Amino acid sequence: MTDEPSSALLTDRYELTMLQGALRSGAAHRRAVFEMFARRLPENRGYGVVAGTGRFLDALERFRFDTGALDYLADSGGLDDATLSWLADYRFTGDVWGYGEGEAYFPGSPILVVEGTFAESVLLETVALSIYNHDSAIASAASRMTLAAGGRPIIEMGSRRTHEMSAVAAARAAYITGFASTSNLEAGRRYGVPTAGTSAHAFVLVHDSERAAFEAQLAALGAGTTLLVDTYDVDEAVRTAVELAGPELGGVRIDSGDLGDIAARVRRQLDGLGASAARIVVTGDLDEHAIQALAIAPVDGYGVGTALVTGSGAPTASLVYKLVARSGEDAGGPLLPVAKRSVGKPSRGGRKWGFRQLDAAGTAVAELVLERGDDPAPGERVRPLLRHLVAGGEVVGREPLDEARERHARSVAELPETARRMTRGEPVIPTRFGQPVQV
Amino acid sequence: MTDEPSSALLTDRYELTMLQGALRSGAAHRRAVFEMFARRLPENRGYGVVAGTGRFLDALERFRFDTGALDYLADSGGLDDATLSWLADYRFTGDVWGYGEGEAYFPGSPILVVEGTFAESVLLETVALSIYNHDSAIASAASRMTLAAGGRPIIEMGSRRTHEMSAVAAARAAYITGFASTSNLEAGRRYGVPTAGTSAHAFVLVHDSERAAFEAQLAALGAGTTLLVDTYDVDEAVRTAVELAGPELGGVRIDSGDLGDIAARVRRQLDGLGASAARIVVTGDLDEHAIQALAIAPVDGYGVGTALVTGSGAPTASLVYKLVARSGEDAGGPLLPVAKRSVGKPSRGGRKWGFRQLDAAGTAVAELVLERGDDPAPGERVRPLLRHLVAGGEVVGREPLDEARERHARSVAELPETARRMTRGEPVIPTRFGQPVQV
Repeated sequence: MTDEPSSALLTDRYELTMLQGALRSGAAHRRAVFEMFARRLPENRGYGVVAGTGRFLDALERFRFDTGALDYLADSGGLDDATLSWLADYRFTGDVWGYGEGEAYFPGSPILVVEGTFAESVLLETVALSIYNHDSAIASAASRMTLAAGGRPIIEMGSRRTHEMSAVAAARAAYITGFASTSNLEAGRRYGVPTAGTSAHAFVLVHDSERAAFEAQLAALGAGTTLLVDTYDVDEAVRTAVELAGPELGGVRIDSGDLGDIAARVRRQLDGLGASAARIVVTGDLDEHAIQALAIAPVDGYGVGTALVTGSGAPTASLVYKLVARSGEDAGGPLLPVAKRSVGKPSRGGRKWGFRQLDAAGTAVAELVLERGDDPAPGERVRPLLRHLVAGGEVVGREPLDEARERHARSVAELPETARRMTRGEPVIPTRFGQPVQV
Repeated sequence: MTDEPSSALLTDRYELTMLQGALRSGAAHRRAVFEMFARRLPENRGYGVVAGTGRFLDALERFRFDTGALDYLADSGGLDDATLSWLADYRFTGDVWGYGEGEAYFPGSPILVVEGTFAESVLLETVALSIYNHDSAIASAASRMTLAAGGRPIIEMGSRRTHEMSAVAAARAAYITGFASTSNLEAGRRYGVPTAGTSAHAFVLVHDSERAAFEAQLAALGAGTTLLVDTYDVDEAVRTAVELAGPELGGVRIDSGDLGDIAARVRRQLDGLGASAARIVVTGDLDEHAIQALAIAPVDGYGVGTALVTGSGAPTASLVYKLVARSGEDAGGPLLPVAKRSVGKPSRGGRKWGFRQLDAAGTAVAELVLERGDDPAPGERVRPLLRHLVAGGEVVGREPLDEARERHARSVAELPETARRMTRGEPVIPTRFGQPVQV
């Protein structure tokens, strides 16, 4: 965080023009509740995964209009002195609740609830959505890959296929869902995600022969390294690898061709050469479907790039941030539910709480979205989903990344068996507004 | 740039382990040429647009391993003292050539050529690909939207649907292709992109009535502002808007429903109320196809969000960075072409130059990718595409963003008419390796 600049301009201009209008009318000081939710899941997805919580809390703490930001805003025109002066003093003083990071979510789940004055809360819309929409899209795709891999480790290696900072966040999101490691060094430094990687085809090509390249890599990284064996001829490369490294060879990587067939052939070859401990890692345009198809192949690990960082067909989670309740002129008065009536984009007014309802065996049966936060269904098994993240402007919900990783594992384990189907067409549990399911 | 940290860890671990191996074998010091290119364009695209050049040059200047980076690398294990010490002294001393930012590209176009030692050049792979893959994906989608809009202005407003820093880069890329403005304030501050935006549904909802909200907005922003008219009933909102603002009303925004039908109705209503100068802006899940379909509607401007920042179905440009030539042990000796033979991922060895061949009317007829940089076809009209970006480690190719914007306009104007088809299935000109087309 120390080397991060202010996050305040990672914001749409209309948040500030709305602020100016609301300062003029007085509505700026009304108490307001904003809710972040998804109207629907991406096609063919059974559940979504919340990610971005920790990054949002960091961004919230850095959401200050410093001199550079204020000078730009003053120069860019349209904002009056009252607005600029209000921005100069800005810090969020309200409360935020949210689903725990790594938690599964469903259509209508109130994954973030921001309560404060209208002015202080509306300003957070863009940066909150940017972070959650990106990170949740990645985590939602990554979670399916983890399931498809069935315990085999996956290396996240998509940095090169996405914006250089998205890459860091994508590595973090993938780790939450159970990926073993990432190629991205900044994700290692910033978030403690384990990093991995050994060599590319360029390393073989810059040497006079594949043998010379393997010798160099083994000398530099030891026999336990993973050698890339598909630059020229795979059979010959595997032979050379074992000849040079001996039975201690760590592993080989295959990046092209029919990965299942080649892995089977390479496994036989490695075993035949006495390198039965050598691991086979496959990479090359893998997604959750390709990973699942390789379940019967003798593969010890996967590397996933493009499909991970692009959300495997769903590059944004399509979360929205909507005003659902506000006070009247008396900011201490009751909160009134509000909702627009725009065609095709319905919103449900009123502040809400999320619970997961479980059956006696502990399997999720419904997402409850209720208008009260107290025990919603005496006698039923329900798990409250909102955590207090910010209290009176102070971040209280920060947690180590491993807690999100553990929460994700628990949350997905609790879902019905249909969550494991890669072709499932609809949410694996229904969202109920206002009442628990009869189990 | 001043508030940006080092870019050196926006890198895959394997670049550093390759460095360690190459320092061991001596190959680190061989002269090398890396080339960035796309094997193919995304489905249904007639051309791609290069973007990211300016950001890459910024990242190159910030590519230094500072103490924080070196400490992390030392702690994370696997790298020896020789490698860490080499990294501490790292700065790129080689040369870079690239297609001008905003230029159209085709399969095989050598859009970036990096020449230096193997070690100094291989390290740039990940960050170069991250920047170009993201920015070019956005620009390639944005360019089609600009064409579809046929001169009507487009506001980029997708920040909330992508990573918060991708949002800034996406606004920049969209501006290069002719977008009028962006909602993103940081893109305004950092790159001088004009910013736009007035209000959201929350602004209407926080007031006691739509009328009160409109009054507040007009008081704060003047009659020339754009009022959002679809929170409740569009007809009534338009009536209220003109009643309050008078014929000087700047415009109205419609964000839901059948945009073409509603725009036609609102246009008649505005004209009938005497507000014939009021502009109609439409937003809401627009992409290039929806924009084209609205060509006959009385629309004065578009706002595009999700489709822009997700590359409208192609969120990454799938550019690769490949070693294509290198010296032998004598770094001063000749450069030898190299290429892997992996199944399905062919590379073409050898250093290359890109030219656009034009016919007598100035229309592009072919992309020439040649092994020589001098005039490739005496008597034919050809335009060299590579600019010198970095000379001996010094950035020499930086340019104002408006130059890229102008280059894009010229480059697209030069393409065959088929480039304007939104459903075109293949590159609009062929790529020729080694010989010009006979015109």
